[in-house]
Amino acid sequence: MQEFLLNIPSIKNFFQDDKLIIKEIGDGNLNYVFLATSSKDSSKSLIIKQAVPYLRCAGEEFALSRKRMTYEIRALKSYKSHVPKIYYSDEEMSIVIMQYLKDHIILRQGLIQRVYYPKFSEHISTFLANTLFYSSSLYLDSTNKRKLMDRFNSNTQLCKLTEDFVFTFAFMPHKTNHVEDNLKDEANKLFNDIEFKTNVLKLKYIFMTQADALLHGDLHTGSIMINEKETYIIDPEFAFIGPFGFDIGALVANLLSSYISHIFVTQDKKYQEWILQTIKEIYQRFEEKFLTLWNNTDESALINPNFSYNQKFKQEFMKQIFQQSIGFAGCKMTRRVFGIAGVEEIRGIKDPTIRKSASVLVLKIGTSLVNNYHNLHDIDDLISFIKANS
Amino acid sequence: MQEFLLNIPSIKNFFQDDKLIIKEIGDGNLNYVFLATSSKDSSKSLIIKQAVPYLRCAGEEFALSRKRMTYEIRALKSYKSHVPKIYYSDEEMSIVIMQYLKDHIILRQGLIQRVYYPKFSEHISTFLANTLFYSSSLYLDSTNKRKLMDRFNSNTQLCKLTEDFVFTFAFMPHKTNHVEDNLKDEANKLFNDIEFKTNVLKLKYIFMTQADALLHGDLHTGSIMINEKETYIIDPEFAFIGPFGFDIGALVANLLSSYISHIFVTQDKKYQEWILQTIKEIYQRFEEKFLTLWNNTDESALINPNFSYNQKFKQEFMKQIFQQSIGFAGCKMTRRVFGIAGVEEIRGIKDPTIRKSASVLVLKIGTSLVNNYHNLHDIDDLISFIKANS
Repeated sequence: MQEFLLNIPSIKNFFQDDKLIIKEIGDGNLNYVFLATSSKDSSKSLIIKQAVPYLRCAGEEFALSRKRMTYEIRALKSYKSHVPKIYYSDEEMSIVIMQYLKDHIILRQGLIQRVYYPKFSEHISTFLANTLFYSSSLYLDSTNKRKLMDRFNSNTQLCKLTEDFVFTFAFMPHKTNHVEDNLKDEANKLFNDIEFKTNVLKLKYIFMTQADALLHGDLHTGSIMINEKETYIIDPEFAFIGPFGFDIGALVANLLSSYISHIFVTQDKKYQEWILQTIKEIYQRFEEKFLTLWNNTDESALINPNFSYNQKFKQEFMKQIFQQSIGFAGCKMTRRVFGIAGVEEIRGIKDPTIRKSASVLVLKIGTSLVNNYHNLHDIDDLISFIKANS
Repeated sequence: MQEFLLNIPSIKNFFQDDKLIIKEIGDGNLNYVFLATSSKDSSKSLIIKQAVPYLRCAGEEFALSRKRMTYEIRALKSYKSHVPKIYYSDEEMSIVIMQYLKDHIILRQGLIQRVYYPKFSEHISTFLANTLFYSSSLYLDSTNKRKLMDRFNSNTQLCKLTEDFVFTFAFMPHKTNHVEDNLKDEANKLFNDIEFKTNVLKLKYIFMTQADALLHGDLHTGSIMINEKETYIIDPEFAFIGPFGFDIGALVANLLSSYISHIFVTQDKKYQEWILQTIKEIYQRFEEKFLTLWNNTDESALINPNFSYNQKFKQEFMKQIFQQSIGFAGCKMTRRVFGIAGVEEIRGIKDPTIRKSASVLVLKIGTSLVNNYHNLHDIDDLISFIKANS
């Protein structure tokens, strides 16, 4: 591999004439991940990520096209900030070589360890506002919007994974689910909750057909690398053109899971309060930044500079993004209780009784959000709703 | 051209060893259209349609990619019924050879001539229900829906024509508009009607981003060939994956224009009543057929056979299609008053005073539909609304 790497000019330029120490460091779920480090200067490292044509953790018989890396590369290159620096990528070879984030940890772990991240809401709100606005018909012209859709439309397999695992299987009896004995009653209740499932279908339909903007597609707290100063978004292999609220919803869902976990595990009220405050700040700043970008745009696929309209249009538009985000958040929270790939801060709770209590509260809040998002009008409403129900 | 035609096996098979008489019969707006007839048997004819890389009526400097024929061919081949038989097509050559509809006229002309078409509502409702349902995520699986999107996503130029001419330029001062002197006050009023224009923007956003189903994209009464027994849909070069309600809206808009024309021109109350009855029947039958197809589908991108949901979901879904259709209908009616390419039954009225009265009523009803479609609950509501306002 050393020869391959040093034949790439940008990589050669990075390492100069140093020999490389290469080791595999992937968690082994989906891809191969290697760390290449200079043998002379251990602070000089790059990450090499390569997709193989199957779900690595499940074996070669579980086919998953390595084409997914194509969409990851395209998304990484679309982002304007808060993304690892890309040194090299090759869609044909399903390979990307990028900055090594050695001083950062996965946000999910940081939240479990009760680390405060004072800049996180500022960073992630910038990422969300930029990514969603600049890839939408509010900014792009008609031609460039369709070109962008073309570049992501065929990420079919990963879109289908979301359709199946986020919107379907986790809410019905299915072999991929994980239902603990002491939660069987709750699972039965959920699987027979027709009102909830009907509301899920509405959100699933929006997910499948609403082509607002470029999504990360899997923006949970495991897709964010962080420290007190910096925030990086990683792993956008689920990227596609979908509804504005889906990434925001994923993020809110995972922050709420962490909040609920701390109610039962650490009982740290200050940290719980910080998480809620962070959700509020993320949303407020996202909305503010998104609107600023929009107000500075005179012409786009949607807007013509000589076509006057009522500014209330933008308020209603933003309210719809908010409500949709909360609906998706509820869906994402609920699906993690019985569905494949539960979140560590809940499913990893050692004590079964505490684990059950936390799961029950996730279910209660998640299903309430799916059933009531149309009744929440702004982020303050959401925070009050969470406090009143937890 | 004879040699080219007879070298195609399906065409050779149609004409056998007959010599051909070929003449150009196109109206010359967009494409070349030729009629090839057997010199032995004048009842044996085919239509040859070829796109050139510009808007033919405007000259070579008005570029319009002949790629549009690709989408026309793809759409014609997607339709299950009520479409001319295709004998040959070549996307690269932008050519399609199809059944000659010698016993049919353009529906717009038939309506001007007050012909009754007793089977039209049955035929067109079948076409709409089949086309919209079978190309949607209610029927297709996730993979095939994305493949279908891929086949139409790049019809960018013609989508942009609609965005510009249906949703934008016709509602603001623009050089392509046609504002008669005795309608200047009405034009000014419309161009400054912020509430109406804001509601248009909402519909435009839906048009640009809602990927429900395969649309014809320009389903006015000039895109339908008809006689008392048969109905054929032609010219789907604007085809793309868009919102369910857009084609229905286009059709309703053009039928309402004809209705309004007859109020002033022929004053034929019986024919006016027939048009309204036809609109009602089209919608009722479309809804019934669409729901029957849906009720017979157990599995699709949206639905899993083991995922139960409330049947009220379908009612709400259908209501949304209805309201959206009416919104689009209002938009389409209004844009024909001052925008490019007015409809013959209104703009072609000889007497300027009568033409003005008809235009004013189109404006009144069109803008009302755009502003009030959320308050109309079913097709009976629409018919009552039209009768009360005309």
